[in-house]
Amino acid sequence: MKAEIISIGTEILLGDIVNTNAQFLSKELANLGIDVYHQSVVGDNEERILKAFNDAFKNCDLIITTGGLGPTKDDLTKELAAKYLGKELVLHKPSLDYIEDYFKKLGKIPSDSNRKQAYFPNDAIVMDNPNGTAPGAIIKNEQKTIIVLPGPPKEMKPMFNNFVVPYLIKFTNSILVSKTLRVFGVGESSMEKVVEDLIENQTNPTIAPYAKDVDVILRITAKAKDKEEADKLIKPLEFEIRKRLGDNIYGEGETTLEDILGEMLVNKKLTIATAESCTGGMVASTLINYPGISDVFKEGIITYSNESKMKMIGVKQETLNNFGAVSKETAKEMAEGIAKLANTKIGVSTTGIAGPSGGTKEKPVGLVYAGLYINGEVKVKKFNFEGNRQKIRIRTVMNVLDWIRREIQNIK
Amino acid sequence: MKAEIISIGTEILLGDIVNTNAQFLSKELANLGIDVYHQSVVGDNEERILKAFNDAFKNCDLIITTGGLGPTKDDLTKELAAKYLGKELVLHKPSLDYIEDYFKKLGKIPSDSNRKQAYFPNDAIVMDNPNGTAPGAIIKNEQKTIIVLPGPPKEMKPMFNNFVVPYLIKFTNSILVSKTLRVFGVGESSMEKVVEDLIENQTNPTIAPYAKDVDVILRITAKAKDKEEADKLIKPLEFEIRKRLGDNIYGEGETTLEDILGEMLVNKKLTIATAESCTGGMVASTLINYPGISDVFKEGIITYSNESKMKMIGVKQETLNNFGAVSKETAKEMAEGIAKLANTKIGVSTTGIAGPSGGTKEKPVGLVYAGLYINGEVKVKKFNFEGNRQKIRIRTVMNVLDWIRREIQNIK
Repeated sequence: MKAEIISIGTEILLGDIVNTNAQFLSKELANLGIDVYHQSVVGDNEERILKAFNDAFKNCDLIITTGGLGPTKDDLTKELAAKYLGKELVLHKPSLDYIEDYFKKLGKIPSDSNRKQAYFPNDAIVMDNPNGTAPGAIIKNEQKTIIVLPGPPKEMKPMFNNFVVPYLIKFTNSILVSKTLRVFGVGESSMEKVVEDLIENQTNPTIAPYAKDVDVILRITAKAKDKEEADKLIKPLEFEIRKRLGDNIYGEGETTLEDILGEMLVNKKLTIATAESCTGGMVASTLINYPGISDVFKEGIITYSNESKMKMIGVKQETLNNFGAVSKETAKEMAEGIAKLANTKIGVSTTGIAGPSGGTKEKPVGLVYAGLYINGEVKVKKFNFEGNRQKIRIRTVMNVLDWIRREIQNIK
Repeated sequence: MKAEIISIGTEILLGDIVNTNAQFLSKELANLGIDVYHQSVVGDNEERILKAFNDAFKNCDLIITTGGLGPTKDDLTKELAAKYLGKELVLHKPSLDYIEDYFKKLGKIPSDSNRKQAYFPNDAIVMDNPNGTAPGAIIKNEQKTIIVLPGPPKEMKPMFNNFVVPYLIKFTNSILVSKTLRVFGVGESSMEKVVEDLIENQTNPTIAPYAKDVDVILRITAKAKDKEEADKLIKPLEFEIRKRLGDNIYGEGETTLEDILGEMLVNKKLTIATAESCTGGMVASTLINYPGISDVFKEGIITYSNESKMKMIGVKQETLNNFGAVSKETAKEMAEGIAKLANTKIGVSTTGIAGPSGGTKEKPVGLVYAGLYINGEVKVKKFNFEGNRQKIRIRTVMNVLDWIRREIQNIK
């Protein structure tokens, strides 16, 4: 089965919104084993939409559209899909009831243009939209199918998952199953080298590395007749990759470094406190993304000035005088100081130069020291990060979280 | 002039990346007054790329491509653009020198496939790529022009701005100039009502509201022969909008609430400190995004536990017992406590239930109290936010920053 995605909306052609729908649908169709050789975007214009249908059906048997299902005169998609496939629109009573009910709850009465959203070809499969007023539809004749979906992602995605996937899965003989491994501490190019021979010899499953903002993901994808067979294909390759990348792999699937670390801290009952300078609270607030963190996160301080470093967590005046606020020695005293103040097993600190100003030859922008106190011992790491203020701060946060993860992974 | 954007790359069709290039180019072309009626995406495949060129030129005279300029055999764009326009590729010496120099700096020698990147039609305009190895090009015959740009946005955008804009501007008679007003504290639908009559009567300039994550922007766009004429058209409309929205407008253009507030705090020499519970350092770290903030931001604390609320900033045991940690009274004592501890003019506090668990009937998830101490007076605000943990925390932060902005705007 070959499909084409047509996104409809002048706002996309004006660059007002990014077309994330096309990405979502492409990925989902790939997972279903349906080939997509072409995506396109057209404006809300009858002639151009019909031409897009015509061009697409030269190469595919299924078109999925997003957008143009609203109540206004500009919204033409459903009407044109029906017209193109030679179908009349008739009133679909359940949709009308839903729309009237929707407006009733708002204390309003639907206008004629809202009612227009309840008309469909009588042999179409109408798809409910609990997140908006525009239902979607699967409209087909003998050879061709057009699936019309609403434009807003929060309406389109659940409709696709709840209706379109079960509908399409009947037509595909094989499925794609992916497993994602999340890696931190190895750059994209170094990782590519580590798995180069595996990538070169790949047929099924395939392996693909992707660089994200701060981490790298490795996706293993198998094509098989069902999930079980796919899992069997993935398993030995995953084992080999895990052997090579070791604890650089911090998690799998849709997770984050802070969730993995948060869970470890809670499971191991390791209380933690933070003392931040250059990251200004970002280590704490990232860690606090993890919902269960209140069991172990006790307190954090942001000692942005020298006075507060001394007053709050007992960094010594002479340390600041002799080595400066951005120094190994200060990072050390901060980590130790916060752990003592908060009476926690772990104390973590950051101090650095996030820029854009404040750098010197000896201490350039991007220089960051982090301190980590665990059960009586303090370690310090020195980093030299590239990038702007925001990037330097985010990289500091993620590297600090990853460092804690590695340090505590063997603590029972 | 009509243009079409063709994005080339199998990774887009697989949904591995979002096609942000198409959005960037659409917006830039709109600003230049060039119509884009169609965008498309094709894979790295000779037949399909040539077909895409052919289809596009039925409706336009300019194609802009992104992607497919790399050194591998899969990278076909430049070769096919030349072929389509009936041009031979010849060695472009300056590009070869650049590529050899680039590899020399890395201590490497370019391979034959890298050298392939230095071949262009002899009448093409070759565009340098200081951010990568693949130069771009403007290739044309009598009727048709194809502009080939690299795929990575950090290479494509500067090349477009530095070469393509000056090239295209010669062909356009009018330009679009936009002015963006940033609004906080008024929802998208309420704002639409406030400016409804202006939107209904719009011709030139036009007004369009867009909802962002936490704020709303209003974009005024004028079409005119030059910037000066456009500015004249925008001015009276902007005046009217500002009159209606008042201090809900916090800034204009590409700025953020924290930058605006940071600048105000620094200019007014208002020192500030933060005491956060549910936001866990996010108020501080957002404020610290503003580079000059170290002049006024003194310290922050994250009092995630009751003990730390008492120990660090003197919240009273009886306050916590009688009213709970999430209460007006606690928010008040936190704001006052941190201002006294840090000896600052402003103290700000947050305490709330970010969820997903921890909510009760009386104190549901989304309930947040914020405290604001300014020069001896403490105020408290109560919020009920919708959304998940992350959204509740972000909404708290932005509402707190906006509150401070409004409170200090009249302080000299």
